[in-house]
Amino acid sequence: MNAQSLLHALETVVGPAGIVCDPEQMASYLSDWRNAYRGAAALVVRPATTEQVAAVVQICHAHRVALVPQGGNTGLCGGSIPDDSGTQVVLSLTRMTRIREIDTANETITVEAGVLLQHLQEAAAAVDRLFPLSLGAQGSCTVGGNLATNAGGTAVLRYGNMRDLALGLEVVLPDGRIWNGLRGLRKDNTGYDLKHLFIGSEGSLGIITAAVLKLYPAVRSITTAWVALPDARSAVELIGSIRALCGDRLTGFELMSRQSVDFVLRHVGRCSDPFAEVHPWYVLIELSDTQPDAPLNDLLEAGLGAALERGWVLDAVLAGNEAQVAALWAMREGISEAQNHEGPSLKHDISVPVSRIPAFIERTDEALLERFPGVRIVAYGHVGDGNLHYNVSKPPGSDDDAFKAQQAAISEIIYAATAALDGSISAEHGIGQAKRDAARRYKDPLELELMRALKRTLDPEGLMNPGKVF
Amino acid sequence: MNAQSLLHALETVVGPAGIVCDPEQMASYLSDWRNAYRGAAALVVRPATTEQVAAVVQICHAHRVALVPQGGNTGLCGGSIPDDSGTQVVLSLTRMTRIREIDTANETITVEAGVLLQHLQEAAAAVDRLFPLSLGAQGSCTVGGNLATNAGGTAVLRYGNMRDLALGLEVVLPDGRIWNGLRGLRKDNTGYDLKHLFIGSEGSLGIITAAVLKLYPAVRSITTAWVALPDARSAVELIGSIRALCGDRLTGFELMSRQSVDFVLRHVGRCSDPFAEVHPWYVLIELSDTQPDAPLNDLLEAGLGAALERGWVLDAVLAGNEAQVAALWAMREGISEAQNHEGPSLKHDISVPVSRIPAFIERTDEALLERFPGVRIVAYGHVGDGNLHYNVSKPPGSDDDAFKAQQAAISEIIYAATAALDGSISAEHGIGQAKRDAARRYKDPLELELMRALKRTLDPEGLMNPGKVF
Repeated sequence: MNAQSLLHALETVVGPAGIVCDPEQMASYLSDWRNAYRGAAALVVRPATTEQVAAVVQICHAHRVALVPQGGNTGLCGGSIPDDSGTQVVLSLTRMTRIREIDTANETITVEAGVLLQHLQEAAAAVDRLFPLSLGAQGSCTVGGNLATNAGGTAVLRYGNMRDLALGLEVVLPDGRIWNGLRGLRKDNTGYDLKHLFIGSEGSLGIITAAVLKLYPAVRSITTAWVALPDARSAVELIGSIRALCGDRLTGFELMSRQSVDFVLRHVGRCSDPFAEVHPWYVLIELSDTQPDAPLNDLLEAGLGAALERGWVLDAVLAGNEAQVAALWAMREGISEAQNHEGPSLKHDISVPVSRIPAFIERTDEALLERFPGVRIVAYGHVGDGNLHYNVSKPPGSDDDAFKAQQAAISEIIYAATAALDGSISAEHGIGQAKRDAARRYKDPLELELMRALKRTLDPEGLMNPGKVF
Repeated sequence: MNAQSLLHALETVVGPAGIVCDPEQMASYLSDWRNAYRGAAALVVRPATTEQVAAVVQICHAHRVALVPQGGNTGLCGGSIPDDSGTQVVLSLTRMTRIREIDTANETITVEAGVLLQHLQEAAAAVDRLFPLSLGAQGSCTVGGNLATNAGGTAVLRYGNMRDLALGLEVVLPDGRIWNGLRGLRKDNTGYDLKHLFIGSEGSLGIITAAVLKLYPAVRSITTAWVALPDARSAVELIGSIRALCGDRLTGFELMSRQSVDFVLRHVGRCSDPFAEVHPWYVLIELSDTQPDAPLNDLLEAGLGAALERGWVLDAVLAGNEAQVAALWAMREGISEAQNHEGPSLKHDISVPVSRIPAFIERTDEALLERFPGVRIVAYGHVGDGNLHYNVSKPPGSDDDAFKAQQAAISEIIYAATAALDGSISAEHGIGQAKRDAARRYKDPLELELMRALKRTLDPEGLMNPGKVF
């Protein structure tokens, strides 16, 4: 490949504004926001339209140059960072920021890949609708990245993953052809469901350029509670009883260990413990309703009262105003930041069937503490999805590098426990580069074989985000 | 192939009870319940376990014999009927009727492919849960068929299609290997989503033998209303306003033209018009709630009252007791049967974006009546899914055969209107044999090309339900 001829060909398509090749300007595209992954690239190309993306992919295909699609670069597994060869081209979708259509009667919105999740949420709110995907990075992650990684977050319990929110896709295929699957249909049984193949494929099968997404009725009442529990088993009992009572009003159920809350109270200035006593576990519960003035407080109090009698709940408080709601969510959302103040930590994003969460926590805690005494286990997550962020901080005062050297052994214990309980080693973060090897070890070989066969079929040259997923 | 050696090999796997080769006994497997499609077969094999299915597929693969998977044989497109060569083997899943596991804490049920949908619903109800898929054939259709065709029905509005209710699958691949994807996980981002490829593939990529399905909280309050409307446009306005008000309480919204209701009143003995006046359109609305004594009547009356003022509603009545609820649903469910009494009818199962339903009806009615004066258009369906059953009955007193000869021209008008509005020519019934040619004409050629590439990858010998889908 001639780098100059490639640059020239791409510039003809996207114009000078669509090319980044100055090393300093390229830097932000070559490492993730946490600076955990770094790569090199021949250049960064920023097409502004689907047709430009198609032309770019055709040119790279003709030159046999590998492409790394990139959105907001907020992923946690290095999926949008090129390798260090310097031969790959980063294709940033961040100029494709159009909201193409809002169809309120169809309850859909059609957006381009580079639209920020938060802008999408705001566009929905402006027409009195809800776009429910909600996650920490929403101010900087893009819809394209959300689709490519099948993003999750705190509202999956009620509204599903990004996959469940998509009705149609527009995708540039590895040979540069455009598949226009932008249908806003809730029922379409005319063959294989191609969109689900591209969603969650982390850019390894094609480049998602736009999508038709579902909208939901605006929420008009919310109740939020902070609840203390004796153990994780009680959290599973509690969510079952609350869901039976409240049905779809249950839109949030976030579990946190005392260790998680301790770190937040220590390091996040604005947070204070809602209870005088220390408790082993907590959940943040959110009920919501499309009706204004829905009697959600009464409903939740009834549910918590019954759970208190059965011993599943030790104490509970309902937020009395918006400031209190914000304060409770700040506790939950502060965990990741707070943990950073305690030195290096090893992060895991696992899922198991909801019924097996207590067993997972008991077994894994015991195995870890036996082998690595003093480590601090920061377990929290989305109980209704069976999804735990099971992070491990070094023992207080211990050596950082010594702890990091144990990373593989610690993860091994966690992933083995996950696999033994029929779980997933990556619930919502994807594989990227970070979990490629773990996926190879813990995934069914037949499933990996099928995935590879699909990859070869759709991307026979292996030019779409090579080195990721597989 | 030697038919005797095949028979012998299969009998070794499934035993004499698992083989049907007597022509008389085979008959019910060789035509669908409406007797619209007929085929022939070398034999019918009825394995009782996944391992037996795998062994059967291996034997057929070795003999290069094509397989036609079959469930309850209630499909409307001939997808489970063999061709007339007499060389294909029908693989009936109806002996695989085990409910393998119910995990109430995980809100999941694991069932085999041959379980009847109604038995699945009953098993869910027995543990105080709802399995929401609901359709006319539920007493005889099987879960495997529901998955293979991505079945829809009346509850899709709230709970989604069968695809949306499945968390994991067990599939016997075309070479006889078993893919165990029976995971009960709500989040799993470790690669391509294989289950969505098999769901809706109509047995053309493998044989679904079991699935992990989602359960929902039991419903404890229901309100049902029968509402008269001036036009289809008002139905779209009405569903938008009711959904905004009621959110997920809205679990049914079925549109019916006066023509549909007329046929029911004429031919279904137990039905009578709830209103003294004749109106052009009707909807049946259902609200439901997990709470006992939820004030659904008040809510629906408020919504309908506001719609009455805006002219979207002409009249409305709420069912006062269970008998009235049943009577209203009998009107909706009687349409298909009633239409049979009016001579031959051409059935279509289309979808368009909800917002385009009025345009679809207006355009198509006009085009049809202009070209085929006197035909009776029986339009009804699931407005919230954009899904209309748009059927056409012959003009009264006209010749049956002359009408049937116009079938292609009538369908052409309907499918062209569907395509022009970015719709689907098969919303919930699938392709099977019935819509193969139409799919070839109305589907994006690139999408068909991708589908064929996937088919070749997973079933290179073309032994899985050949002649269907493509």
